[in-house]
Order: sequence, then C-alpha cells, then structure tokens
Amino acid sequence: MKSQQQEGWNVPASRVARDTHNPIRSIVENLNLNPNPDKPMIALSIGDPTVFGNLSPPTEVINALCESVESLKYNGYAPSVGYEEARQAVAEYSSVGNLEITAKDVILCSGCSCSLDLCITVLANPGQNILVPRPGFSIYRTLAEGLGVQVKYYDLLPEKQWEADLAQLEEAIDTRTAAIIVNNPSNPCGSVYSREHLSAIVEIAEQNRVPIIADEIYEHFVFKGHEFVPLALLSKNVPILSCSGLTKRFLVPGWRMGWIIIHDKNSVFEKEIRSGLQRLSQRIIGSNTIVQGALPVILSTTPQDFFESTVQHVEKNAKLAFAALKPIDGLTPVMPQGAMYMMVGLDLAKFSLFPTEIQFVEQLVTEESVFCLPGKCFDYPGYMRLVLTVPTEIMIEACNRIGQFCERHLHLPLEVEAQMNS
Amino acid sequence: MKSQQQEGWNVPASRVARDTHNPIRSIVENLNLNPNPDKPMIALSIGDPTVFGNLSPPTEVINALCESVESLKYNGYAPSVGYEEARQAVAEYSSVGNLEITAKDVILCSGCSCSLDLCITVLANPGQNILVPRPGFSIYRTLAEGLGVQVKYYDLLPEKQWEADLAQLEEAIDTRTAAIIVNNPSNPCGSVYSREHLSAIVEIAEQNRVPIIADEIYEHFVFKGHEFVPLALLSKNVPILSCSGLTKRFLVPGWRMGWIIIHDKNSVFEKEIRSGLQRLSQRIIGSNTIVQGALPVILSTTPQDFFESTVQHVEKNAKLAFAALKPIDGLTPVMPQGAMYMMVGLDLAKFSLFPTEIQFVEQLVTEESVFCLPGKCFDYPGYMRLVLTVPTEIMIEACNRIGQFCERHLHLPLEVEAQMNS
Ligand SMILES: Cc1ncc(COP(=O)(O)O)c(C=O)c1O
Ligand SMILES: Cc1ncc(COP(=O)(O)O)c(C=O)c1O
Repeated sequence: MKSQQQEGWNVPASRVARDTHNPIRSIVENLNLNPNPDKPMIALSIGDPTVFGNLSPPTEVINALCESVESLKYNGYAPSVGYEEARQAVAEYSSVGNLEITAKDVILCSGCSCSLDLCITVLANPGQNILVPRPGFSIYRTLAEGLGVQVKYYDLLPEKQWEADLAQLEEAIDTRTAAIIVNNPSNPCGSVYSREHLSAIVEIAEQNRVPIIADEIYEHFVFKGHEFVPLALLSKNVPILSCSGLTKRFLVPGWRMGWIIIHDKNSVFEKEIRSGLQRLSQRIIGSNTIVQGALPVILSTTPQDFFESTVQHVEKNAKLAFAALKPIDGLTPVMPQGAMYMMVGLDLAKFSLFPTEIQFVEQLVTEESVFCLPGKCFDYPGYMRLVLTVPTEIMIEACNRIGQFCERHLHLPLEVEAQMNS
Repeated sequence: MKSQQQEGWNVPASRVARDTHNPIRSIVENLNLNPNPDKPMIALSIGDPTVFGNLSPPTEVINALCESVESLKYNGYAPSVGYEEARQAVAEYSSVGNLEITAKDVILCSGCSCSLDLCITVLANPGQNILVPRPGFSIYRTLAEGLGVQVKYYDLLPEKQWEADLAQLEEAIDTRTAAIIVNNPSNPCGSVYSREHLSAIVEIAEQNRVPIIADEIYEHFVFKGHEFVPLALLSKNVPILSCSGLTKRFLVPGWRMGWIIIHDKNSVFEKEIRSGLQRLSQRIIGSNTIVQGALPVILSTTPQDFFESTVQHVEKNAKLAFAALKPIDGLTPVMPQGAMYMMVGLDLAKFSLFPTEIQFVEQLVTEESVFCLPGKCFDYPGYMRLVLTVPTEIMIEACNRIGQFCERHLHLPLEVEAQMNS
C-alpha cells in the first residue's frame, strides 16, 4: 500500500500543532512597533525580571549550581519525576502552615509551564473544559487549546482588587469541567487573594467536585501587609495540584525548574491522577539534573533578605508608578499587592484616536518608545500591563513619558490628529 | 450548572495520561528481581553511561558549564526554540558533508526525548500511524500511543546486522502513515547502517512521500571501520527531522539538552511543519539556558580524543563480550558496530526451564546477580540487551557469570530443576 500523496509533497501539521498558539506572541508580532529613534526604548512588556540587569539570582544560588556542576554527581539520568533529595527539598520548602508534603507528592518539571502542561493534560480530555481567570496568563489557553480542551473564563473584578467573580465562576462550571485554574498571586493583575476569598473559591470547587490547579509561581512574592496563603492550606476535601518553581522568586526563568505538588488529603488523586502524572513525566524524562542537584542547597540557604529586597524593589516601583499614573486623566491604574505587574485601565472614550488599547500601545511606542502589553494578550481589552521589575529611574522615566503621551492625546479629535500625521 | 459528581469525588485521568506508558518501566517493575546476596549486582540494564563511574564528561564540558553559570548571562528566558548562538553552534556541529544547516533549522529541546515528542506530535494526528523499528527504543511507542497515534513495526534483521526489512517497511506504509522513524546507530541493536542501506530507506520514503524522523542520538558513536552517515545527507527530496543532543556522546543524559534539525531542501516543511514545531516548543518554553549558554564552547572545544576514548572503551567491551558469549551453547550475540548495546539471542529450546526470555533474565538475576533487559522491552522477545559502558573487569565478570548460568541450565529437563528448587 502507498501513502496518500503520489504527486509532490504535502505534509500538513497535526491538529495539536495547529491549535497550539501563544496569543501573546501572535498579538505582539502583529503590532506596528516603531520606536521613536530619539528616545531609548523602555520595554515594560517582558515578564523576565533578569533582562534589565538590575535583578540577579543571589550568590548562594549561583554557587550552589557551580558546586552541583563540579561535583560530577548530577550528569546521569534522574528518575523522570526528579531525584528523591530534590523532591524532598521542595516538599520541605513548601510545607508551610500545617501542610504536610512529602517527596512523593512532588514532581519536578521543566519549568512551571511544563508543570501546568502535565496538570491540564492529566485532568482534561478533548471536549472537556477548564476554567481560567480573565485577565489571565495566556499559557493556560495555549496548553488547553493545543489539547483540544476548551477554555471557559471567569472574570476578575478590577474594582474588587481583581477578586474572582464568584457567582460567574460557579455558573461557568458544567458537566464537562475538568479543573479550575486559580492563579495567586496573579499575572497580569498583581493581586494577592485573602484567605477568605481563596476559601470561597475552594468552597465552590468542593460543592461542585471540581479539582483545582493552583498556579502559585509567584508564591511569597507579596508586598508589605499582604500574605501569601497556599490554596491547599484552605482545602479540606478539594484535591489540588499546585504548580510553582524557581523561575520568579529566585530570578532564574531560563533554568526551567518547576514542580507540581499533589495535595490530596482524601486520596482522590490516588486512583489515577498521581500515576498519570508520573507516566506523563516520562515523555520528556524530567528536568535538568544539575539544577536538581543544587535544589536542596538553593531552597535551604537562599537568604530571606534576598527575597525581601526583590519584593521591596518591585513594591517601590509599584507605588511610584501608581502615584505617577493615578492622577493622569484617562488612566486607571490598579495598585498591585504582589507579583511583578500592574494593570492600567484606559478610558478610551477620552483618547479618541485609539479605537482599542492596541492602537494606544502602538502609538505609545511610536512616540515615546515605551512598550506595555495590550490587555488583549490576557483576554482583557481596554487595559495595558506594566512590568515593575525595571530599575527605578527607568520606571519613573516610563511613567513620565506615558503621562506626556496621555496629555497629548486626551480628547484629541480625530481630524486634528490626522492633520498632524500628514 | 453543576458538575457530574454530586456524591463523593471521582477524578479520572485523561485518555492521554492513561495511554502514555513506558513499556520498559512496566516490564521491569513486574520482574521478580532477587539478586544472589553472595554476588555483587551487575546491572547491564541501564542505558546511562555515567552510572558506573568509569565514564564522565570531559573537563572542557564541565568547565564550559561552570563558566556559563558564573557569567550570569544565561539566567533569563531564552526564545523557546533556544538562543540564536546556541542554535548556530548546533548548526555548525551538525553541518557535516555538504549539509548546510543554519540556526533557523535548529530547535533546542529538553533532551532528545522531547525532540522526538515534538516531531511525532507535529506530524501525526490521532488515528494516523508512524512506522518504528523492531527491535526499537520504547519511547517511540510511549510518545505515539499517548497521542493516540498508532505504531506499526518494521523488522530489523539480526542475520543482516539488523538492517531493516525493506520490503516489509514499504508494505507497512499506508494512507495514514505520518512518518517513518529511523534510528541509526540503534538502541538496542548497536547497528550502524551503511550509506547504501540508508539510501534504500530514503528511497522508499521518497516513493511513498512519507517524511522521516531520524533518531540520531548515537551519531558518531561508531566502532572502527564503520561510518556514521547522517540520513539527511542522502536525501534529495525527503524532508527529514533529525533528532540528537548531548546526552550520549557527551555523557550528560541528565542535562536534558537535545535538538531537532529540520532538513527540508524543497521547503515541504515550510508551509506548516516548521512553524508547528516552533509553536509546540512554546508549551514548555525550551531547555535549560545554562546548558544553552555553554553549547557553543562544548560543541567546538570537546577534544576528539575524548570521543574516541569513550567509543574505544565500548568497542573493547563489545569485542570481549562477543568473544565470551559467542561460544556459549544457546546464545547468539550479534556483534554491534556502534552505540552502547549488544543484543544476544537466546535459543530457548535449549533452556527448557524458561518459557520466554523474561524467566531467563529473572533467573540470571536470582543466581548470578546479572541483570540484562529482556527483549520484550524492545518488542523483541527471545533476546536480551547488554549495556556495554561498564568497566571492563565488570563486563568480563558479567560474561563469566552468564556463561556459568547457561552451562548450568542448558537442556536441563524441567523435573530435575523442580527437584533442585524444592
Ligand atoms: C502566572 C504564570 N504561570 C506560569 C508561568 C511560567 O513559568 P515558567 O517560566 O517556570 O514556565 C509564568 C511566567 O511568566 C506566569 O506568569
Ligand atoms: C535511541 C534513543 N533515542 C532517544 C533517547 C533519549 O535521549 P534523551 O535522554 O536525550 O532524551 C535514547 C536514550 O536512551 C535512545 O536510546
């Protein structure tokens, strides 16, 4: 028997490949970005805290990695879920409050993205759906749609510090709902949920018997006066897969070290999910062993003041940016409580040149060389997201430029602008 | 609306998770392995050249990694296909003969397993099939079946140095065949194909318009007198995805550095496959950046005599083992030409105690503490696979024990054995 194509070659991509999209990438690639040559570019768009050079991992972490390399002990294959000692270290690191996590509850992955991939893959079949926050991080959609799993949104409410619309969340659950994704602290909102709000979410999951995937990659990354509460701490019966990693808190996104923690007090995941995750981890045989070898030292010796100084820096920038943008007519910044981002609402009725936030951010690049991600990247038009990890003087400069830009364009009737451009 | 389960919790695993199996793991876990306490264990089962401590990566590679860590330049996110310079380094390393590979033809992945995962995922839809060698490495099946892609076998012929049965290969191609996987040099066979044989395979792919996935993770790992020919060198029109990495040749399986090279002279993959692979790489955002940062140095400075000494060691063991096992009644070792393995045929008619090779390898552990993988792990009953990377004295000791074991069990009638065991 012969294959279909006798004439010429035609090799189509699979459905999975076609349906795997990173919306941020496609939106950004279609933007017209022509920075003003007279002003140095300020990219407030990239969620990589290391790119500006002001934030780096602590010496302890770098040294731990060097020692791991030089020990020559971590060149071979690890079990696909990770070395026992490395998983044990994550278990200890994550056992806050009365959470009792053991090494067997931990699966090391190639970054938190891979953790999320495994969690969504193990829980949801094509045709089922998962509930994701809006605005929310785009990888949930990238992963789910690639698998043929539908994404249903629940809204986060800017006027309530981005708490979830609980009624809508519950309403969105249907017979085909495989999981609820909760992202706390949040990208892009920078919100940090209270114990009460998290409990309310867990309660809805419990009532409806829907497991939760908790994306806690920004765990502990919270500003003064706020508290990070691991979702699992509040769950009596809801089984939770919590995803985190070194990426953000230790400032090493490129190292690709993430993990899943299986919280399953009542052994709901014992029957199929735990072993399913283990089997899925064999597809790519786990994460880099050199980083695994260093994990026990990294997680136990990184000094508290390293974490604090990073968060303080981001908090300082958040306050500065909020103070600078708040008075600007047409902008509604929402003060974050943690993570590395701030969402800013645009009153587009006041900027008549820009039909959507897309044109606003494009023109902001053209005139001011300041690039913020349009809300559309997070399925949330009418907003833009600012990254807060930049050096403070750049943060200030960016806000000044945004201010001047807004002043120039406030209420500017279309005709005038057209004349200016011609 | 509420979810299905009002009473209690029942969270089933997805189809993908259920269908993702590592046959080696399930076979090995079901073996009765009770080593003889009087003899130290010799595990000739694990395809990890670093476990015995006699083979380690070269100093140049270790130093390159340390420098990459200390430079502090590789902590941030890389593009999900990898840094340009790292891909450029792979392109140069792989541009042998008249192959002209550029950085844009290279996608870095988290190990060769991840490369294979992306290649199979991009080419095959559920319901389609891929052709894989038998005996063959089990990950093809793990990956394909997880995706709902069927595996069809083409046999490798031990009497022809494990060349593919070409007639059967062609016969196996049908209208739903998405790709042919060719593994050269081979795990578990240790075979290294000639230019002619590879050309014959390419010719079949060409006639039938089926793309090839070339698993070349053992590239250059060939014994004296043999030559590694990249499959792509022989293809005029067949588009080929070649998978390789640092894993075997540089003795760093745990580092998880693999890559795909897109060979596509006639731009068959231009329309969908290239961009599909790029999009799929965004699911887990690529491989460890520290290793990526070191790749240019690793690939350009590792001395030739490091590679040669590893291969010489394996070749020496191969010759020793072959010479030791060849004369043993009931065994048919097939001399390998490269890679790290040797397949040994068992004439089970002569070992009446053992209905299949499974019982043979189990009892070999019980009596002699020597563990070889049963052929079933490679879909090839009646054989066992020996790993050849062990220290030479252990290789010799293992062969001696195998010899004594075979002598003891040759033709042994069942009744006598039963008496012995009672
Ligand atoms: C909310 C959230 N989850 C997951 C990730 C992915 O983390 P990683 O780089 O470890 O894959 C990010 C990265 O930006 C994120 O913002
Ligand atoms: C033929 C073959 N392909 C691929 C792999 C996987 O390599 P990696 O460890 O880089 O994923 C192996 C590992 O044993 C192999 O033998």
